[in-house]
Amino acid sequence: MDTKSPGVHQPASHLGGIMRVLILGIDGYIGWSLALHLLKKGHEVWGLDDGSRRMNVKLVGSDSLTPIIGWPDRIRVLRNYRGYQDTSYATLGEGTADGLLHMLAISEPEAIFHLAEQPSAPFSMRSSVDAALTQRRNVVGTLQLLWGMYTIAPYAHLIKLGTMGEYGTPDCVIPEGRVPDYPCACSDLQSQECPMRGLLFPRTAGSFYHLSKVMDTLNVEFACRNWGLTSTDIMQGVVFGLNEYDSMDEITRFDYDEHFGTIINRFCVEALIGHPLTPYGAGGQTRGYLPLKDSIQCLEIAMMNPPAPGEYRTLNQFDTTYSVNQLADTVARCADQAGLKASVKHITNPRKEKEKHRYDPIHETLFKLGYKPTGDIEQEITRLIAHLAPYTGKVKKEVILPKTTWF
Amino acid sequence: MDTKSPGVHQPASHLGGIMRVLILGIDGYIGWSLALHLLKKGHEVWGLDDGSRRMNVKLVGSDSLTPIIGWPDRIRVLRNYRGYQDTSYATLGEGTADGLLHMLAISEPEAIFHLAEQPSAPFSMRSSVDAALTQRRNVVGTLQLLWGMYTIAPYAHLIKLGTMGEYGTPDCVIPEGRVPDYPCACSDLQSQECPMRGLLFPRTAGSFYHLSKVMDTLNVEFACRNWGLTSTDIMQGVVFGLNEYDSMDEITRFDYDEHFGTIINRFCVEALIGHPLTPYGAGGQTRGYLPLKDSIQCLEIAMMNPPAPGEYRTLNQFDTTYSVNQLADTVARCADQAGLKASVKHITNPRKEKEKHRYDPIHETLFKLGYKPTGDIEQEITRLIAHLAPYTGKVKKEVILPKTTWF
Repeated sequence: MDTKSPGVHQPASHLGGIMRVLILGIDGYIGWSLALHLLKKGHEVWGLDDGSRRMNVKLVGSDSLTPIIGWPDRIRVLRNYRGYQDTSYATLGEGTADGLLHMLAISEPEAIFHLAEQPSAPFSMRSSVDAALTQRRNVVGTLQLLWGMYTIAPYAHLIKLGTMGEYGTPDCVIPEGRVPDYPCACSDLQSQECPMRGLLFPRTAGSFYHLSKVMDTLNVEFACRNWGLTSTDIMQGVVFGLNEYDSMDEITRFDYDEHFGTIINRFCVEALIGHPLTPYGAGGQTRGYLPLKDSIQCLEIAMMNPPAPGEYRTLNQFDTTYSVNQLADTVARCADQAGLKASVKHITNPRKEKEKHRYDPIHETLFKLGYKPTGDIEQEITRLIAHLAPYTGKVKKEVILPKTTWF
Repeated sequence: MDTKSPGVHQPASHLGGIMRVLILGIDGYIGWSLALHLLKKGHEVWGLDDGSRRMNVKLVGSDSLTPIIGWPDRIRVLRNYRGYQDTSYATLGEGTADGLLHMLAISEPEAIFHLAEQPSAPFSMRSSVDAALTQRRNVVGTLQLLWGMYTIAPYAHLIKLGTMGEYGTPDCVIPEGRVPDYPCACSDLQSQECPMRGLLFPRTAGSFYHLSKVMDTLNVEFACRNWGLTSTDIMQGVVFGLNEYDSMDEITRFDYDEHFGTIINRFCVEALIGHPLTPYGAGGQTRGYLPLKDSIQCLEIAMMNPPAPGEYRTLNQFDTTYSVNQLADTVARCADQAGLKASVKHITNPRKEKEKHRYDPIHETLFKLGYKPTGDIEQEITRLIAHLAPYTGKVKKEVILPKTTWF
């Protein structure tokens, strides 16, 4: 690795800050939104996808509530932007990595966003086959990417999408990635240092999907430690809402089914069709949340502010923490204001998780790097409900309530 | 899981302590030795293997130094024991789990030993393909086993072979699996409790193979936590030596190549052929070691002393820690006494690892359960050299020195 040039990790200011970006999973909920955002900012964008998000959502009997256009049409939309370069089809983690390696070679990326994973916890708990698919695609796919970077693109900055769910809900402060060297998170004393400081903070994930993300974290951290690759590993909270789009062709997908719909999105759709909002169990489960446009903002911040070459950096990426009950109340309130009648009805929790617990995660670094949350959650939810209202008739009620259980 | 019977986890005293045992990886170095040992103790033994250890060792240009018989002949040997039941061929982690599920169903195991993994760190670092093979077979294979147990054998006690290498070499005491609630390992204070106590102790593995074992640990712990499966996860030190055999047909395989030969075994073969013993790097690397027969003893102890139903238990399984230099000196001394001339020649370390470090792992539980180390290391190595001497002419010198590097 003697040939490494540290300078390449700096924002490419010689091109006016324009970067060469490869987005793995460019057809997904976040990937599509991110591609458009970066193109509008003038960056050069390559992409890769295998359409598995579209396919898996259909497999569970659902479809995007927003009317997204087909992939060939999306490529036509991308071509309208000067920075758009190329997209290819490749599945990660299954068989050879040829398509990925080819894309790494032709794009010569400065930044790689890895969003090409099976993203659903319930999907991973459906069966042995779905669990194996999830771990094989996510773990082996990331492994193939890391080897590809090592051989073809060792200077690139890998921005890997993980999840706050990797940490679980331990009864202590959750640091950003590693056991901290600041004393308070490890001990009530101010004067002692934890002998475990600097080690990866222990993860207690709650599904085979979440475990696959922890496994990714282990592989990425090792690739940085062993090969000197550079990575930002994003522990992202739960994302909700829609992207900012200039035409309907640019709208991103919106899932609301039990497998691929995240909780706020699901609640909003329940409100739209007059179904009670359905917290799982007691509703004290607390997590970090952020709107999709904040996720895009944070990913851009991570890209423009890379870690030092060879560094493995973890960012906890969310705006605010809420309990499920707080979210249900908030969505119900926004729905009321929109003239909808939203009640709340707790249902049996299909998951095995603590329904009342401490949740105290640190999320400082992105704010220090300039992250500015774009709005309060009521405003976001109100706008989301208004955006979705035209599609109310398309909602398939039967895909919302959980049928996959953890046990 | 209401139908669970806690009693099934107790040693089956109604059968005079005889247990129904399924050994995954029964044709391997440990698997074969364990099968014979348990059959001699009167247990009922089923097995599963796909011959991949034989195949992979040949793939790297080597072969067992001991003259092991073919698999059909081994089955004839096993049939001489009253308790032997059946063996089938199945590969874990690739394609369907049909063969595994069938075996779980017909054997109705009380104890399952999972030894069916790709066990070599250098093999996993050879290439992207070998890294992917290692993680796919180990992680997805274990996942398929866990789902199989959940659906078919939820009462069985899974004894899973992990490695002390999962922990790496952190600069603190290494507990048995979890962040301890005894104060000294976490803090120099006696009066403070660590807020992370009870979480999985952070792992810092040093190869894609070792990472695959950490990933297994995560899946097994989750399966116990989520489904109430019962497991002993063995963090095993480096094993060396031969099994106890009553006839030459019963001898286990013995590998000495850079990929599948563990360090003491490799040093002994170097001594036999008059090659200098070759520590990697400075030789201060310190690990826990145990002879193969101690490994078998410990595995039997784990089986006969299962954890509580639903418990995930970690055992750090080794006798004593040694540095590479101590091992080289010891083997050289034993070789001298055997009339061989053994010198020591340090070579460039092909691995990325600390060559001088603290190593302070706890290994209490197996000793409390009755583990009695069978001899001192010099005695073991002396016997091993004498056992191997007849095969000196078969040694392929070219497979010993490392060609696979970590970077």
